[in-house]
Amino acid sequence: MTEIIHQTASKPIEVDLLILNGLVLTLDSKDQRFDPGGVAIRNGEIVAVGPADAIRSAFHASRTLDVTGCVVLPGLINSHTHAAMTIFRGLADDLPLMEWLHQHIFPAERKLTEEWVYWGTMLACAEMILSGTTTFCDMYLFEHKVAEAAKAAGVRALVGEVLYDFPSPNYGPIESGLDYTASLARQWQGDPLVRIAVEPHAPYTCSPPVLKRCHELAERCDIPLIMHVSENDAEVEEILKRYGRRPVAHLADLGMLSPRFIADHCVALDDHDLDLLAERGVQVVHNPESNMKLASGIAPVPQLLERGVNVALGTDGCASNNDLDLFGEMDACAKLHKVATLDPTVLPAGTVLRMATRNGAKALGFEGKIGELSPGKWADIIVVDFEQPHLTPLYEPTSHLVYAARGADVRHSIIHGRLVMADRQLLTMDVNEVMERVRAFARTIRS
Amino acid sequence: MTEIIHQTASKPIEVDLLILNGLVLTLDSKDQRFDPGGVAIRNGEIVAVGPADAIRSAFHASRTLDVTGCVVLPGLINSHTHAAMTIFRGLADDLPLMEWLHQHIFPAERKLTEEWVYWGTMLACAEMILSGTTTFCDMYLFEHKVAEAAKAAGVRALVGEVLYDFPSPNYGPIESGLDYTASLARQWQGDPLVRIAVEPHAPYTCSPPVLKRCHELAERCDIPLIMHVSENDAEVEEILKRYGRRPVAHLADLGMLSPRFIADHCVALDDHDLDLLAERGVQVVHNPESNMKLASGIAPVPQLLERGVNVALGTDGCASNNDLDLFGEMDACAKLHKVATLDPTVLPAGTVLRMATRNGAKALGFEGKIGELSPGKWADIIVVDFEQPHLTPLYEPTSHLVYAARGADVRHSIIHGRLVMADRQLLTMDVNEVMERVRAFARTIRS
Repeated sequence: MTEIIHQTASKPIEVDLLILNGLVLTLDSKDQRFDPGGVAIRNGEIVAVGPADAIRSAFHASRTLDVTGCVVLPGLINSHTHAAMTIFRGLADDLPLMEWLHQHIFPAERKLTEEWVYWGTMLACAEMILSGTTTFCDMYLFEHKVAEAAKAAGVRALVGEVLYDFPSPNYGPIESGLDYTASLARQWQGDPLVRIAVEPHAPYTCSPPVLKRCHELAERCDIPLIMHVSENDAEVEEILKRYGRRPVAHLADLGMLSPRFIADHCVALDDHDLDLLAERGVQVVHNPESNMKLASGIAPVPQLLERGVNVALGTDGCASNNDLDLFGEMDACAKLHKVATLDPTVLPAGTVLRMATRNGAKALGFEGKIGELSPGKWADIIVVDFEQPHLTPLYEPTSHLVYAARGADVRHSIIHGRLVMADRQLLTMDVNEVMERVRAFARTIRS
Repeated sequence: MTEIIHQTASKPIEVDLLILNGLVLTLDSKDQRFDPGGVAIRNGEIVAVGPADAIRSAFHASRTLDVTGCVVLPGLINSHTHAAMTIFRGLADDLPLMEWLHQHIFPAERKLTEEWVYWGTMLACAEMILSGTTTFCDMYLFEHKVAEAAKAAGVRALVGEVLYDFPSPNYGPIESGLDYTASLARQWQGDPLVRIAVEPHAPYTCSPPVLKRCHELAERCDIPLIMHVSENDAEVEEILKRYGRRPVAHLADLGMLSPRFIADHCVALDDHDLDLLAERGVQVVHNPESNMKLASGIAPVPQLLERGVNVALGTDGCASNNDLDLFGEMDACAKLHKVATLDPTVLPAGTVLRMATRNGAKALGFEGKIGELSPGKWADIIVVDFEQPHLTPLYEPTSHLVYAARGADVRHSIIHGRLVMADRQLLTMDVNEVMERVRAFARTIRS
């Protein structure tokens, strides 16, 4: 960086976009900060990060964002969601799990169409951009439409069709589901925004042969393998009854656990599970608000982190949260584990912010490309307006980001170098059309 | 209401303000809703609530808010805070309680001045109005400045000076503290916005003689008596050691417990405590986010509600939350108790919304005046913009208010009939001056 600036002091380098005058939190390995700082962006990548003066004199861009009073940081990474479930937001709450699923969610999902999934995902992308998320990892039905929607919205995504033993309304029998996934992976290979994963639903909905075939497909395509694991005690009991071992041990026996494996939830873990997840280098995604609302339990996140497990953060779907705001999720995460352990020093703000950025990048297989602001990384950047009463005064920006900021404080968002939101206006979609489409589906669902 | 409309169909009644075309949630005893609905306001009071058409034809006002696409509901009530502690927001987090208090908060508070308290409270009022709170209950130092700030900001408040055995930087010895409180009560008697309470700090900082004198003063002035009670296990152990009984039993023995008594926190309760609080009709204020962040524990709110105890909601101060957003607090409250009890049906959204409205009104002694939208009640009303991606689609507004809305979604706020925020612009203060003042104090605190 310094070198680039010195080389070009007399003749500024042309770039696409400059972000100047904010407090820049790089979240890089040295946790560098520049205040006031600047970021230079070209061809989807970060060219330089440094003091505002140095960036201003070294670069010239057709567009410059003056972000005085704002904090500039890597875009947040929502490592587990079911984006299209925005269409069921608030349809049914506060119910016993089985009643919620069988009397509300499953009947509504029986009406599910490609079109619902596309517009539901667009709505989710709108909400995510507006609340600072620049990458999400999705599991649902009709995922080719999720991929299309993410691409259209300009949001980075790792997506995969949910796979299970019974026939799917999208692909039919499981054989077709594996083919569908392989075909999606071929179709999107090399795309700068969208990547594909193999996504068996859960140990209780996928037989061992199906799980093995999923694992083989993920290995063959060299893509992530994603699954709900140990979401609650009932699942553990069910798997113990069926296979004589707990879900994590069951998956380990099937040879599925590796750094390629992304385990969502991981609430009900014993010490042996914790050790296995650590030994095999499994990626864990924590979804505190969904786990709270569904009364699933409290994931042993401090113990996972102590063992060196990479733990990322997700919101889960809107039917069980009921929003996709990672700022709220960070706040809940930091607070929940303090009260669960009766230790106020557990999961400090900096740790939680990394779960929602760097750890997410690593979990989803984007390590070294996103999750920090450094030269050569993809330019996924958010700008948060700190000149507001609830973020005043400012002693420590990390504290505010986790404990006081909310999605609505995000002013600009850049994904892969593209400005997708400026001054809270979405630039990649007609948000009123998106909301109107989803409202029409909701009328059908209600009737 | 219907009568008024019929009487005046030919000649509209003149009022000060009309709110028309929103979905009106009255939160009255019948939980009436009007969609589209309207509210008519005159002289600080609600004159009528009903269908938009009926209100439109029966009333005329110089100012009408068209709130199509919005939800109209009673302003939220923050039943426990230390407003001026905004100046310490994010100063120190994630620390053991004693280190946090003795190395960060107490040293900073030693520098406290009247001026800090005034501007810190103004900042809190800005944040509270912007996030939908129209009434707060405060405990801190230099409370005459809190009363002044609340009045200037146009926010309804129940305030009281914190009283304890040791000398106060405001009033000096406890005798003067009681006089100071009595004098405040006289000064503000009959004020439409500000009321005064007697506020001994906690059982471990106030000797029995001091507590008795506080109780007598509250009885004599016929005003609320407010105290932190059983905030964590350490307090219970300390009081057990000193007095041979737990805090609630100790206060019961002193004759202090009655419907006048507002007990903040009530985290560490046993069955006998629960029974005592219910028998004596004590008002309890739950502060879930502070209790989580400080690792105090989880208050047995479902058990309190089962016993018929009135439980209100508070944010506590910004040093331990770190914001004053009751929408976030409602969300945390509803979710925390589900996971704590492993029962997803506990504290449904409607119950939590009432904790932040009607229950707060009752707890603070404003029952029948605020907390619902009905003719004759004071006009404390908020308008929440539901035409946003994260609040789309809409099946049930109560669900969105608790699980998906955030402070920033509040568009207008009316307190005692006065429009204090319109289109997110604060009308009762220069918010930039307020933030600049507090930033200057923060520079002193940091140095």
